[in-house]
Amino acid sequence: MSARIITLMTDFGLSDYFVPAMKGRILSVLPEAMIVDATHEIVKYSVLDASLTLEGYWSCFPVGTVHLCVVDPGVGTDRAILVAEYMGHFFVAPDNGLLTCILEQAVRYPDNGPLRAWILKDENRYVKDPSPSFHGRDIFAPLAAEVASTGDPGGFLHLWDPVYLKRVSIPDAVSIENLITGLVIHVDSFGNLITNIRRSHFLQAHFPAPDHSAEDGDSADGITVSELFPYRIIANEVIFFPCRTFAMAQVKAEPLAMIGSSGRLELCMLEGCAAELEGFGIGTTVRIEVSGNR
Amino acid sequence: MSARIITLMTDFGLSDYFVPAMKGRILSVLPEAMIVDATHEIVKYSVLDASLTLEGYWSCFPVGTVHLCVVDPGVGTDRAILVAEYMGHFFVAPDNGLLTCILEQAVRYPDNGPLRAWILKDENRYVKDPSPSFHGRDIFAPLAAEVASTGDPGGFLHLWDPVYLKRVSIPDAVSIENLITGLVIHVDSFGNLITNIRRSHFLQAHFPAPDHSAEDGDSADGITVSELFPYRIIANEVIFFPCRTFAMAQVKAEPLAMIGSSGRLELCMLEGCAAELEGFGIGTTVRIEVSGNR
Amino acid sequence: MSARIITLMTDFGLSDYFVPAMKGRILSVLPEAMIVDATHEIVKYSVLDASLTLEGYWSCFPVGTVHLCVVDPGVGTDRAILVAEYMGHFFVAPDNGLLTCILEQAVRYPDNGPLRAWILKDENRYVKDPSPSFHGRDIFAPLAAEVASTGDPGGFLHLWDPVYLKRVSIPDAVSIENLITGLVIHVDSFGNLITNIRRSHFLQAHFPAPDHSAEDGDSADGITVSELFPYRIIANEVIFFPCRTFAMAQVKAEPLAMIGSSGRLELCMLEGCAAELEGFGIGTTVRIEVSGNR
Repeated sequence: MSARIITLMTDFGLSDYFVPAMKGRILSVLPEAMIVDATHEIVKYSVLDASLTLEGYWSCFPVGTVHLCVVDPGVGTDRAILVAEYMGHFFVAPDNGLLTCILEQAVRYPDNGPLRAWILKDENRYVKDPSPSFHGRDIFAPLAAEVASTGDPGGFLHLWDPVYLKRVSIPDAVSIENLITGLVIHVDSFGNLITNIRRSHFLQAHFPAPDHSAEDGDSADGITVSELFPYRIIANEVIFFPCRTFAMAQVKAEPLAMIGSSGRLELCMLEGCAAELEGFGIGTTVRIEVSGNR
Repeated sequence: MSARIITLMTDFGLSDYFVPAMKGRILSVLPEAMIVDATHEIVKYSVLDASLTLEGYWSCFPVGTVHLCVVDPGVGTDRAILVAEYMGHFFVAPDNGLLTCILEQAVRYPDNGPLRAWILKDENRYVKDPSPSFHGRDIFAPLAAEVASTGDPGGFLHLWDPVYLKRVSIPDAVSIENLITGLVIHVDSFGNLITNIRRSHFLQAHFPAPDHSAEDGDSADGITVSELFPYRIIANEVIFFPCRTFAMAQVKAEPLAMIGSSGRLELCMLEGCAAELEGFGIGTTVRIEVSGNR
Repeated sequence: MSARIITLMTDFGLSDYFVPAMKGRILSVLPEAMIVDATHEIVKYSVLDASLTLEGYWSCFPVGTVHLCVVDPGVGTDRAILVAEYMGHFFVAPDNGLLTCILEQAVRYPDNGPLRAWILKDENRYVKDPSPSFHGRDIFAPLAAEVASTGDPGGFLHLWDPVYLKRVSIPDAVSIENLITGLVIHVDSFGNLITNIRRSHFLQAHFPAPDHSAEDGDSADGITVSELFPYRIIANEVIFFPCRTFAMAQVKAEPLAMIGSSGRLELCMLEGCAAELEGFGIGTTVRIEVSGNR
């Protein structure tokens, strides 16, 4: 199987020659590649931000896509150069934890089949004496193009046991009967605060999730919102009202919480910017507890 | 007729998984699509900004192009999902006024033929239970791909009378004999202030427009600029000198006014930033009146 | 020879209709063009920034690529519309010095063959009466598409002697025995300070360059870093420690200097932002002298 779609994620920004230099090297190896800019605005050096962002888009692409991800604070050190395959998608990245979200998914859903990994041993494969500060151009870009071109990393790379792959710690939310505690792990461009609380945490707490796909009644059926969601979502002493869709929200700039498109609980405001609330940002703790008026 | 160019405009910014998730869904439906990033920097939630920007580029593309526009403050409510066709171009957008510029053009130039519209009734056509906060990924992206793939929205959508389409109010300039009043409706990335005053308003006022395509004499023919343009352009007590081209301007950072590439009067400064003038921005009123020294 | 890859560099930013309008015009002339966004974040009106950025990516692309560069403070004046060919690549740009880096390279490496140039004499070739403030859309975009389509600028353009081409002054570093003086000419998105000091300046000063490709011993061989690099790199009284790779650096946020991926000396900090140092920016002078403790 050979591929030709190559998605490109970096923390390089768009104001330098870095991104076009990588694109040029890809096209020099594989002129018919279809390069898709994913994002170049990953928080600089943040492997966690890269992994969370990758989680949001990789599976939207067709099987066979090569996802090239270069957020590489260890460039020029001896961290490994990695290729992984999972569910028919290829991932090319430094071995620094960037693929943590993929590794976790492979563990969580064993029925999807295994993740396989390879490393590149010869750093001079594409450019003799690659720049120690720009492996993106001299190693990763042509490597991604060769993976796309051949569809067979095993044909030229060294098989590697996924248990050795680096991971970043994504702090897990804690859920017990009637109580969930988590924290904000990402702020999106609308100022929505994305938490590490998933629908499964609501199930564990025996709380109905503020999720559009819930089938446990509806406020239109004569049930009030506070009856539907018998809990309070609190962060920094601000109460966020659970809702399933923005259509349930009635007041602009009212603090809301809903399971967002990433499957995580998001703190947001209708046409507003939750991140501008005093003291909110990555790391803010979120607590979900039984509401007093139940 | 089938298409494969799909332009993409959103207010999502480029730092999240939102845009690549949409691109992936498009390519999953139509792997040979040529996705062209128009812009993802529309002012957040601003349907007016989206409409003005779309006006500036859609007709530059070949006939058959699909223009996907997702600026959707009403996502998750019952606003309709819209496809329109005009002059051989397709437009896919929420029905919130984003296509106002196209609707107005269809009215202004009836010889170009009618605008036709359809709506998608089945929100579950592409993804069962789409995310209520990300129709861009779960509905609009695959819809645009299907429109591009089939070239025939009527084959799977519900015909809709364009008179029912939502519009945004774009305040019109007022032009009478010897007087035009308008206002700034957009600030571009150079800091130029784009107004709602068009060449036609100059004609109505019996003023020669500061327009390169004018054929009513030239300053090089011994006519001074003040004779050529016998009026004053004033905003916030600043006088902007009319000119046809930047070549007519002699002083850097002098306030100028010319009909710009969008066909609208723009307030600008040679290699300067008019938007940094004290008190200028969207909504600033502009007045054009007979100059005192005529 | 015909091409189809067209790279696109502008100072237009990404928030307006400017860039998609250009893309649309390219695709209207050459529907099978593969448009590659290089960058649209060139410092506004900065021909120097454009030239330095172009230098960093053009040669990464395959032979036959058309590099369209529109940073054009003189739009609407009589500056010429230029096409150049060098080493099988085509360049389309205003004649304002933007191609200085290519011209200098052609002089420095005569074995690469000559640079050839042409100018467009008929500004109305593509659009009658082009907008005097947006030649990017009305002239440069279709011109680049025609160059890509035909691969033969000489077939429709006017041959032009490269000696007449405009250049920007890129201040040269000065290197004598045991002393180099240069300055910062660019700040990249990581806050690295890129200087005009190249490896050749180190050779002239009889200093070993802080360059990964050096083969003159290694600190791992029992030689200390200060023995390996017997000089001091000073700017604004801050001392930057020479190193070959980030792996040699041990302390985060320590000031470092290394020959970067552009072949120029860069002042940087491991996972830090050198540009945030007090008083540093474009124009900061850099001095390299024999270290006191030699």
